[in-house]
Amino acid sequence: MSEAKVERLLINYKTLEEFERFTAYGNQELSMLEDLRNNIVENDSESPFYGVYYGNALAARMSLYKVDKKYDQYFQPSQDYLILWKLEVLPNYRGRGFGKALVEFAKNCNLPIKTNPLINSQGFWEKMGFQKAKYEMERDFGENPLIWMPEGVKEKE
Amino acid sequence: MSEAKVERLLINYKTLEEFERFTAYGNQELSMLEDLRNNIVENDSESPFYGVYYGNALAARMSLYKVDKKYDQYFQPSQDYLILWKLEVLPNYRGRGFGKALVEFAKNCNLPIKTNPLINSQGFWEKMGFQKAKYEMERDFGENPLIWMPEGVKEKE
Repeated sequence: MSEAKVERLLINYKTLEEFERFTAYGNQELSMLEDLRNNIVENDSESPFYGVYYGNALAARMSLYKVDKKYDQYFQPSQDYLILWKLEVLPNYRGRGFGKALVEFAKNCNLPIKTNPLINSQGFWEKMGFQKAKYEMERDFGENPLIWMPEGVKEKE
Repeated sequence: MSEAKVERLLINYKTLEEFERFTAYGNQELSMLEDLRNNIVENDSESPFYGVYYGNALAARMSLYKVDKKYDQYFQPSQDYLILWKLEVLPNYRGRGFGKALVEFAKNCNLPIKTNPLINSQGFWEKMGFQKAKYEMERDFGENPLIWMPEGVKEKE
């Protein structure tokens, strides 16, 4: 079992600087930085990110968002579900179960989860119990969606 | 000016085999292959892909889909727009204007376009007249959306 402690990440300059080390740094982080600079978000307010620290350094992170069931296009019956994105463990901290700890944290919410992984991470997601969603172009476009369902939930037909 | 001829790609075993050479090969292509094998789509039916051939070889491709204005979350006034994804030129055929030819083909439809590029292709998209959409988490999640607008169209505020 991993001893990693998963915590909600707070929006502040230190976190945003640490985010720059992650490959998936993009518009989301830039927009958070701009909002912080312009006082549109308060310092230390909650971000959609969760992470694992190793000492003082952010070693791994993911973003989580709960989608309301009225927008559910994946599950049956329609229900609230989580979108998980930007799961990433920095190279120096791999092999310690941090990625697994983050995904297990998400699974413990007991809601179905949808993610769109990097293609070369398929093995990891399978081990975590995720399966390919049936591809639907008008919903998925360039994505390769994977889903995880708690007991009693099925994929939408 | 590029002399590249852009054509609609047809779903058949030859095209699907050529798709395997592209990095973004994923669930979409696998699902097309399965549908073809199971006679759910007819041989040589139209795919959502457009491509440029060099001799007999597929050298570049992109996927295009027209979204109905009732689902438009990007533009003002709300209108039909194109999603462009999986734009890719195979390494041996780069520097010949094939990527540009594909994007210009899409722009000639005279509808706004949304794409989610690879982060390292920002310079190309800028040259093509695309700009960053303002990031909205509940719409964009892990995407870094870029948009292009014909005259008279604005980004949604």
